[in-house]
Amino acid sequence: MTSDVSAQPDDGIYIHKIRVSWADCDPANIAYTGRLPNFALDAIDSWWLVHFGEDWYRLNLERDFATPFVHLEMDLRKPVTPLHPLLIALRLAKLGTSSFTFAFVARQNNEVCFEGRFVCVAATTSSFNPIPIPDYVRARIGHLERPD
Amino acid sequence: MTSDVSAQPDDGIYIHKIRVSWADCDPANIAYTGRLPNFALDAIDSWWLVHFGEDWYRLNLERDFATPFVHLEMDLRKPVTPLHPLLIALRLAKLGTSSFTFAFVARQNNEVCFEGRFVCVAATTSSFNPIPIPDYVRARIGHLERPD
Amino acid sequence: MTSDVSAQPDDGIYIHKIRVSWADCDPANIAYTGRLPNFALDAIDSWWLVHFGEDWYRLNLERDFATPFVHLEMDLRKPVTPLHPLLIALRLAKLGTSSFTFAFVARQNNEVCFEGRFVCVAATTSSFNPIPIPDYVRARIGHLERPD
Amino acid sequence: MTSDVSAQPDDGIYIHKIRVSWADCDPANIAYTGRLPNFALDAIDSWWLVHFGEDWYRLNLERDFATPFVHLEMDLRKPVTPLHPLLIALRLAKLGTSSFTFAFVARQNNEVCFEGRFVCVAATTSSFNPIPIPDYVRARIGHLERPD
Repeated sequence: MTSDVSAQPDDGIYIHKIRVSWADCDPANIAYTGRLPNFALDAIDSWWLVHFGEDWYRLNLERDFATPFVHLEMDLRKPVTPLHPLLIALRLAKLGTSSFTFAFVARQNNEVCFEGRFVCVAATTSSFNPIPIPDYVRARIGHLERPD
Repeated sequence: MTSDVSAQPDDGIYIHKIRVSWADCDPANIAYTGRLPNFALDAIDSWWLVHFGEDWYRLNLERDFATPFVHLEMDLRKPVTPLHPLLIALRLAKLGTSSFTFAFVARQNNEVCFEGRFVCVAATTSSFNPIPIPDYVRARIGHLERPD
Repeated sequence: MTSDVSAQPDDGIYIHKIRVSWADCDPANIAYTGRLPNFALDAIDSWWLVHFGEDWYRLNLERDFATPFVHLEMDLRKPVTPLHPLLIALRLAKLGTSSFTFAFVARQNNEVCFEGRFVCVAATTSSFNPIPIPDYVRARIGHLERPD
Repeated sequence: MTSDVSAQPDDGIYIHKIRVSWADCDPANIAYTGRLPNFALDAIDSWWLVHFGEDWYRLNLERDFATPFVHLEMDLRKPVTPLHPLLIALRLAKLGTSSFTFAFVARQNNEVCFEGRFVCVAATTSSFNPIPIPDYVRARIGHLERPD
């Protein structure tokens, strides 16, 4: 997997582009099922980098801010292969008091390969205690919420 | 991740034991979220080996029989770490005409870390066309169905 | 890991850019050792795409042409982190009768993180028999050889 | 990959058993090259657990003791597949002032698939400064050195 992190229009839909590779594929000649949640997670980590200005690594290590996941849900429609770029359209579907719901649709060659939603909660890295989403976080990404 | 595939009592609940390792963990000192679906998939692949006598590799390459996943769903309750073995209790929750629903609960130190259900369908490796579950498959694993 | 595959000057040195991510890191807050050879392999797979026009996936599936590795060698100088892009400078150091030797130096923030060389041989995917490098391959990449 | 960590005779050769799986394989129907160094690393992590009583996770988090790798070297002889267990025979080939050299030979069905040596150095997790191997470490594993 290799992907492209570039500036994005601020319309709330982040398009994450992944080059699926030989390394991602299994003997059925398609990306292994276990890789697909990782593609979606990579999109979310990049979403933070693009929209907040810091990725999970900096958020955790420099701000003691973590977002542990509590729910993962995906429907798989079509096999993913290295023949086309994988474009993951990701949005913040719901911003709760302490939770973030991300919804995504992944396409290759204009066809939906998989879609789903992942929910994570605000926490501190050092204790994993759930916390309300900090004001400085909400201030920078709150306007990106795009409900269903 | 390293796990232990051993003979199991034929009660329909397969216990898959995984040694979570340093390699599975991220800077939050817990198994990375993207590893967790892979743990569940490893349990299912091993379930086939133990109960059917062949793993995905042999089923695909020697029988042209594949089980592509169509739905993944997980709730994450507690972080997974290398401090305890991860025991995944897996059962075949529903055997449809052409689908298999696997349900699992993963525990460390007697506490639930994550649980979920994955759905896959019968297909041929060569064409990915969904097919009814072949009789020789149903004959060997049908008695293992344990509905909710 | 996400990377950027873009057009390259044809000087024989391919620069492969990887976004190292949280997912690549272990509890020591650096990219896990086992990820580093994968970064180098990703660079080589992309080298084929950029210079030959096809990646390993197409070479194997559409041309029955494989390049199984026979030797891996790396020296690790400095930890790799997500704080800077990882730039892998890769060259074809030697083109033998049936072997390819790739040499690489990976840098972050102008400092060498790791370097090494990987050797692979020409083969057919279907049989894994070593073969002389096919003329159509040599014709397209032979001019890129940059000996030590 | 799933493996079996069991008590070992104290002859200095540790046999690490891995169940190679579908998830490890690529479209050439063999374990992906990038998985092989990870198999060897898994053997070394398990070696610490079996012989020292603690794996990398505990050594790092509970003792502030790390062993960053500085050199990786492998020769690949035969493809690795899920058809047979992978048995990695691992020994501590050299114990230096601050370095550990591990040598390994990995076999399936009595044939050598790959072999190599990895070198790591003693350090603290918190600073990555190289240090002399601590006495309490040398005391517990020093007798396991098996030079070439």
